[in-house]
Amino acid sequence: MQKITLLIQCKDQKGIIAAVTNFIVSVEGNITYIDQHVDREQSVFFMRLETELNNPAFSLEQIKNQFKDTIAGTFNMQWDFYNNDIKPKMALFVSKYTHCLYDILGRYSAGELFVEIPLIISNHMDLKPIADQFGIPFYHVPFTKDNKEEGEKAQIALLKKYDITLVVLARYMQIITPSLIALYKNKIINIHHSFLPAFPGAKPYHSAFKRGVKIIGATSHYVTEELDEGPIIEQDITRVSHINSIEDFIMKGRDLERVVLARAIKLHSERRVMTYSNKTIIFT
Amino acid sequence: MQKITLLIQCKDQKGIIAAVTNFIVSVEGNITYIDQHVDREQSVFFMRLETELNNPAFSLEQIKNQFKDTIAGTFNMQWDFYNNDIKPKMALFVSKYTHCLYDILGRYSAGELFVEIPLIISNHMDLKPIADQFGIPFYHVPFTKDNKEEGEKAQIALLKKYDITLVVLARYMQIITPSLIALYKNKIINIHHSFLPAFPGAKPYHSAFKRGVKIIGATSHYVTEELDEGPIIEQDITRVSHINSIEDFIMKGRDLERVVLARAIKLHSERRVMTYSNKTIIFT
Amino acid sequence: MQKITLLIQCKDQKGIIAAVTNFIVSVEGNITYIDQHVDREQSVFFMRLETELNNPAFSLEQIKNQFKDTIAGTFNMQWDFYNNDIKPKMALFVSKYTHCLYDILGRYSAGELFVEIPLIISNHMDLKPIADQFGIPFYHVPFTKDNKEEGEKAQIALLKKYDITLVVLARYMQIITPSLIALYKNKIINIHHSFLPAFPGAKPYHSAFKRGVKIIGATSHYVTEELDEGPIIEQDITRVSHINSIEDFIMKGRDLERVVLARAIKLHSERRVMTYSNKTIIFT
Amino acid sequence: MQKITLLIQCKDQKGIIAAVTNFIVSVEGNITYIDQHVDREQSVFFMRLETELNNPAFSLEQIKNQFKDTIAGTFNMQWDFYNNDIKPKMALFVSKYTHCLYDILGRYSAGELFVEIPLIISNHMDLKPIADQFGIPFYHVPFTKDNKEEGEKAQIALLKKYDITLVVLARYMQIITPSLIALYKNKIINIHHSFLPAFPGAKPYHSAFKRGVKIIGATSHYVTEELDEGPIIEQDITRVSHINSIEDFIMKGRDLERVVLARAIKLHSERRVMTYSNKTIIFT
Repeated sequence: MQKITLLIQCKDQKGIIAAVTNFIVSVEGNITYIDQHVDREQSVFFMRLETELNNPAFSLEQIKNQFKDTIAGTFNMQWDFYNNDIKPKMALFVSKYTHCLYDILGRYSAGELFVEIPLIISNHMDLKPIADQFGIPFYHVPFTKDNKEEGEKAQIALLKKYDITLVVLARYMQIITPSLIALYKNKIINIHHSFLPAFPGAKPYHSAFKRGVKIIGATSHYVTEELDEGPIIEQDITRVSHINSIEDFIMKGRDLERVVLARAIKLHSERRVMTYSNKTIIFT
Repeated sequence: MQKITLLIQCKDQKGIIAAVTNFIVSVEGNITYIDQHVDREQSVFFMRLETELNNPAFSLEQIKNQFKDTIAGTFNMQWDFYNNDIKPKMALFVSKYTHCLYDILGRYSAGELFVEIPLIISNHMDLKPIADQFGIPFYHVPFTKDNKEEGEKAQIALLKKYDITLVVLARYMQIITPSLIALYKNKIINIHHSFLPAFPGAKPYHSAFKRGVKIIGATSHYVTEELDEGPIIEQDITRVSHINSIEDFIMKGRDLERVVLARAIKLHSERRVMTYSNKTIIFT
Repeated sequence: MQKITLLIQCKDQKGIIAAVTNFIVSVEGNITYIDQHVDREQSVFFMRLETELNNPAFSLEQIKNQFKDTIAGTFNMQWDFYNNDIKPKMALFVSKYTHCLYDILGRYSAGELFVEIPLIISNHMDLKPIADQFGIPFYHVPFTKDNKEEGEKAQIALLKKYDITLVVLARYMQIITPSLIALYKNKIINIHHSFLPAFPGAKPYHSAFKRGVKIIGATSHYVTEELDEGPIIEQDITRVSHINSIEDFIMKGRDLERVVLARAIKLHSERRVMTYSNKTIIFT
Repeated sequence: MQKITLLIQCKDQKGIIAAVTNFIVSVEGNITYIDQHVDREQSVFFMRLETELNNPAFSLEQIKNQFKDTIAGTFNMQWDFYNNDIKPKMALFVSKYTHCLYDILGRYSAGELFVEIPLIISNHMDLKPIADQFGIPFYHVPFTKDNKEEGEKAQIALLKKYDITLVVLARYMQIITPSLIALYKNKIINIHHSFLPAFPGAKPYHSAFKRGVKIIGATSHYVTEELDEGPIIEQDITRVSHINSIEDFIMKGRDLERVVLARAIKLHSERRVMTYSNKTIIFT
């Protein structure tokens, strides 16, 4: 038995659901999950479907080709079939903050995340001991303003070497360069330590403190060329009050960052996220 | 154009989704919402589907008959078609507490609830002025331990007279009798002022205070013969601390009761709730 | 027995707490609540204290004078004594939205708010029936861009006539003029339908929808001359997802607006809010 | 300069606050935090005070003695002075679950917790590699139903050897014995994977699933002889729905357990928790 996940995006039209479900029946698949969404404003249709294939006569490759030649063409779909047994290969980018790194590696070791983590990349040596502690290769790729391009090349080479399909910035304090973003469109997840779009950019906890907000947040999003403006995957918040100092904001925010980033990794790796119009559809 | 909602429940089998969506295509319906759920433990299939019918050749009555004779039979379904233009007729049962009544009537007047409220029934006269204020008929049906049966008869007569399809207990402090429950199975919504199953029965805020909990809650559920044990529709919570007195618990709880009851009414009236095994499926 | 509340704000210095508590002991008061806060960055001290006065020999007036001549002078305090039996007189400003108005009047009628509401002021006639329904005088003060000053004069005259000490903008869709703000500094509460500082200004739900946020919010704050930038009193949030339309955002937001505004009114009227540096201290 | 924390509990009486603050002034202390609470039902007074001592003429030992001989006696107080530089020595008890252990050790390594962790004790060898990974001594203390007493003796010997002042059960799946509880009264923190008092005992996620709740929770509490009935320190919750399986409940619950336990450790180690009447006072 093989389990696969199908993601579809196309112009909204009559008969899509019937056509797709009939197709699955025709390859003797058993639908175990189906969810769809229609953006009425822009008339876009989205679907996520999981199915169990029990007849070995239908291989994933065959099914893909058949789908491509029939339904995908008819409805002019963007689509992807995923083998549910294959985990995304995830690279972690870090700088000096330990909390998200410890959290992700702890979850990873506990078997909570559906990913493989073949390497950690950093512009500093500080977190190498943690990588060692968890037995994950650590690559030090330092760069300065003047040789940023060189650093990017080294990063990309590493990502290619390890067949990386997902990049996670675990409080990596550097701007990602356009070439890297272009190579990993909607495949680079960042955690920003504010409730976006409030307090983008640097030092959001300081800004939140100054403004006197009663709630602070964290936001995980895909990285685009516009800083902190990519499609939002997940957000969460916690209450603060006048008794909390900036240090308290930072400490409370850590728990948000940890959990909001972990949820985004989980959603992405289970192929539950689709993007369009700088927004996400999250099929839970 | 007519909008209808279809709810289905049956044993999980292959091909249900394809069969149902093909049926909708065959009557020229445009599916605007589809969601399904499978309970894997008990192998039960649930579906909610909204469709727009544009061809006047297919009347709701016709479609129902056709569905019944074909798919519903084949898959041995429990099912219901609802006309999306027809609102549930809701009776409010109250005693002496004002907050849920004010909240529901405020929302009703503001056009937020998809119901008609033709009458309010109470065992006390206290809240008649509020009914009057909002121009809704108020029926005083008093009873004692000794003539509870008589009271119930009067209540049922009123519900029949007004073609009531939904009963809401807005902090009605009486036990509903089995005959009334039998007539309105999964159609009587109660709001209980605790986070069930914690603190069932009387005085939950007092019990919560005594136990020293850090969070209190409210629960809306369908009424069954087992007190406070019916299928849960919605719950919510709020934080409390040692500085809060029992009076604070009660005051904070009011906001929970209001909103949790209002959400349950909304979910039920929009036909988003299905029940089985003393649990609910909520299609949002 | 008389209950009073004392609010103090001054430069942080040694010995304030001891001096104040000794003073209360000297007038035979029983301290029933004391809380303090020090802003370490700016070195400001804040205190809220409730006390029961049992000896009729010490009148509130006497105590005030004594406090002024001794401690208040020594520590160069801003301070206020409030008689806990005297409720703020609150004016409601509304335009056309019904939900906050219904909610406040429902709570008011249920005895939940420690205020008197002698009048409602609106630039439209639409909500007069609701004012009538609850028996509260309704004043129609229309104005246009061209005669805004005249409108403001009429508003101020009404506020003076009724001895108003608190103004609440219950989704009042007009900019408050500087003269009115100056008269009621930190005494005009607005409810803004976003999680400030995200989405200030008009149509925040539309902006939130466009940005694809996963959480929306509401903010109650004191009105200052900078639009939506006054000291924040309370905020709350609710989750949204891709399935929610703008209309859903608006509907879900209503529950936030209601409760966040009600909490701000409650906090202010119980003299639990102090302001400085465009922020609030909330003593709960 | 020395920072100390004072916790006080006594019968409510007039003049306590003035007496205590005067005492602090008399030893030239600068009060940096003061909070108090009165339980009006039972007439008990609680206070937490932090102060900076700048005059070396007053040592902590001297101050304690002076306090004991004067105020503590006068008001018949239970009280404790803590040196803010001295961290609690915390023993971790674990069995086979990794998630709380990884979380605590990650936070510990990141410097987030005000404790020392000199040892980990377990009845199984499974988690030894994690202890090794973080360089913390791991003691295997196995026992069976028949020699539980012996196991307890070995545990107590270890706790004494390491001067342990706080025991944390990080999903330790064994009942703590009365002798150990007696030795560490209100100093053993457990994390229970439900929203107590709902679902005490074994398999709470299974019970929650069966009951069809819409929210699950976790509770940290001090261990008493009554299973899952000790004073609650902290609780938190997360939403679930019909789409979640028991496995999902367990997975979502892990995030609750992690954070609720970490918060309890933080509160306790910063001496912010007082207990009485099987409840906690939390000074934040």
